[in-house]
Amino acid sequence: MLGNVIVGQSGGPTSVINSSLAGVFKTAKDRGANKVYGMLHGIKGLLDKQYVDLSEKIKTDIDIDLLKRTPSSYLGSCRYKLPEISDDRDTYEKIFEILKELNISYFFYIGGNDSMDTIKKLSDYALLVGSDIKFMGVPKTIDNDLAVTDHTPGFGSAAKFIAATMKEIIRDGLVYDYPTVTIVEIMGRNAGWLTAASALARGEDCEGVDLIYLPEKVFDIDHFLERVKEIASKGRSMVIAVSEGIKVMDGRYVFELSDHVEFVDAFGHKQLASSAKFLANKVGSELGIKTRAIELSTLQRCAAHMTSRTDITEAFNVGGAAVKAAFEGETGKVVVLKRVSDDPYMCITETHDVHQIANIEKKVPLEWITEDDFVTEDLIHYIRPLIQAELSPIMVDGLPRHLNVNMD
Amino acid sequence: MLGNVIVGQSGGPTSVINSSLAGVFKTAKDRGANKVYGMLHGIKGLLDKQYVDLSEKIKTDIDIDLLKRTPSSYLGSCRYKLPEISDDRDTYEKIFEILKELNISYFFYIGGNDSMDTIKKLSDYALLVGSDIKFMGVPKTIDNDLAVTDHTPGFGSAAKFIAATMKEIIRDGLVYDYPTVTIVEIMGRNAGWLTAASALARGEDCEGVDLIYLPEKVFDIDHFLERVKEIASKGRSMVIAVSEGIKVMDGRYVFELSDHVEFVDAFGHKQLASSAKFLANKVGSELGIKTRAIELSTLQRCAAHMTSRTDITEAFNVGGAAVKAAFEGETGKVVVLKRVSDDPYMCITETHDVHQIANIEKKVPLEWITEDDFVTEDLIHYIRPLIQAELSPIMVDGLPRHLNVNMD
Repeated sequence: MLGNVIVGQSGGPTSVINSSLAGVFKTAKDRGANKVYGMLHGIKGLLDKQYVDLSEKIKTDIDIDLLKRTPSSYLGSCRYKLPEISDDRDTYEKIFEILKELNISYFFYIGGNDSMDTIKKLSDYALLVGSDIKFMGVPKTIDNDLAVTDHTPGFGSAAKFIAATMKEIIRDGLVYDYPTVTIVEIMGRNAGWLTAASALARGEDCEGVDLIYLPEKVFDIDHFLERVKEIASKGRSMVIAVSEGIKVMDGRYVFELSDHVEFVDAFGHKQLASSAKFLANKVGSELGIKTRAIELSTLQRCAAHMTSRTDITEAFNVGGAAVKAAFEGETGKVVVLKRVSDDPYMCITETHDVHQIANIEKKVPLEWITEDDFVTEDLIHYIRPLIQAELSPIMVDGLPRHLNVNMD
Repeated sequence: MLGNVIVGQSGGPTSVINSSLAGVFKTAKDRGANKVYGMLHGIKGLLDKQYVDLSEKIKTDIDIDLLKRTPSSYLGSCRYKLPEISDDRDTYEKIFEILKELNISYFFYIGGNDSMDTIKKLSDYALLVGSDIKFMGVPKTIDNDLAVTDHTPGFGSAAKFIAATMKEIIRDGLVYDYPTVTIVEIMGRNAGWLTAASALARGEDCEGVDLIYLPEKVFDIDHFLERVKEIASKGRSMVIAVSEGIKVMDGRYVFELSDHVEFVDAFGHKQLASSAKFLANKVGSELGIKTRAIELSTLQRCAAHMTSRTDITEAFNVGGAAVKAAFEGETGKVVVLKRVSDDPYMCITETHDVHQIANIEKKVPLEWITEDDFVTEDLIHYIRPLIQAELSPIMVDGLPRHLNVNMD
């Protein structure tokens, strides 16, 4: 009998983060793990001894399949960055004491950059105190901004939802016989991967979005207005995709140009919400064109009814691969995806030293952004395989069914 | 050989308005119509002689099936209210001249309240001048605010998208271990049917939304803040559904309480966009709770990837029934849906005098709204059958395929 396993989820939700949880749980059980615990609300909850025995929650094969279709973090999440070991050993002692109480041999953490930092610090501390607990990171983030990995689980499904929704917004936006401007704001504060995915809407049956603005490139409002004017002068309506994180030359976010008061959230992150609204108002007032601003908001990260089967499968596999690697003795690693072939698309998992991944942001290469405010075919070819195929929702009484999340 | 047919679409888009178009086209062809024309951009386009021969656009059975899955108005739309006959006979003479040129015997108009007004006036004018062209209205509106009909095609699919999306937003919104407030703004300026549909999210696998505010009832901000405080005091996160059209006691819209400048659109409609944002800021600043405002925006009316099969079928049937009735000699009528049984749900079509339908708004009965800011089981039972079953998208290269809309 192997030792016990604990798994947690952290950071912003995705549509497929629970598929990774399913991958960890099922693979650990299949490979002979004793107990598989789930920490509630990540490492922060663990510090308060909040955890569940996952076997009491995931009892049947249909539960596994429902879990794969349940958006957001089944175990709850946190945004909590561990202190530096040198600054605060107490926290680490406390965590390792709890892990000892639970007889944990394997620790898995599913999350983005901050979560990989957690794995880095915990595995460093284990080394320091001679603990033989294995710590493995399981990547997820819709933002696709993790280093080393070809892409991140969660990105493909968000990209699919965005491209599909853009097709629908384009149909909706082009319905009248006079020029209108629809500006759609997409998540990704520093990396434009998701906004770029809007390019996939263009096809045999769809005009596609007209203009795409990513945060990797300085946003020039005058140039933007010129482009809108040019398209409108042909009598055409247009749909424009902008990242929430676009910034002007002096480094301010576009939404900061508005005199509208915004919040700073509890974690010090600025609430970015209205770059699209600001630009829509600008077009309306300066060019006199009818506009609409749409924020895809959290829908783009939790639309479990429209996931990519490729993404769901890869998310499951990175969870399973993390278990396999840990059980075989690896620690301080992150499971990454390696694309071994572009056409046909094939992707395998590898493990990689967490120190080379944590806290590094991967952005869209500038050469993939075109001069005419769009993205290159190379970028489209990079994303296209990641949105392929579907995992149909299990529909009950007209609605997608999820796994019951009641933790009481 | 029967005379020619013309069909147009008008008003705001829905996910199923093209299913009604398919119903008109297919039934007319099946019943021996000669040409079936589509007016582009409704009656406004017709006045400029903009029309197509639909047989050149819808060529195969797969085209019919793609059309059913294509959101928004395939033929384009307009927001154009015909003048009173007594004020401007010229416009009517012009329309009837064009109809004569095209040898039209049957005229179908798919739309909401304004479109039914168009059918009323055109059929009145036909009576006045002794024309034997038959005019029939085919109802559609996500708002469900048409009189006489049990419900409107378009409502069920929007309700299904809203309920499904709410389940996802609830998972996303309840992920952290401290109270947060997510406020979701839903369409429906005067009628709260769509906002009420958010109640369907509650079920075995979902906590449901906590509070629902419809425009039928005066909105009391102090009471609202009390309710939020009460729920937050139990440490619970919450998701709240508000209609875009909620108003305070003095008759102002909630968004009008903000000092944020809003637009009046080209048709004199106020752009309602930020009741949720206003309330989220209010909760944030007065109660110090982390908030998020989400506007479902046009996604709720164009999400063809998540339609109700019940709705799609009924939308097709009202189109077909309009053709049958007109071919049998009826005019100045609207096809309505009559629920003949609640359980099991069964619904048939009937025709009804347009004079008793046009320009009347059907609102949510006050007795279906509860004192604790929710809706009754009666209201849920009314909506539930309308979201049943699915029409799977035809997925091509990872995305839902639509019928090509190129009209050049």
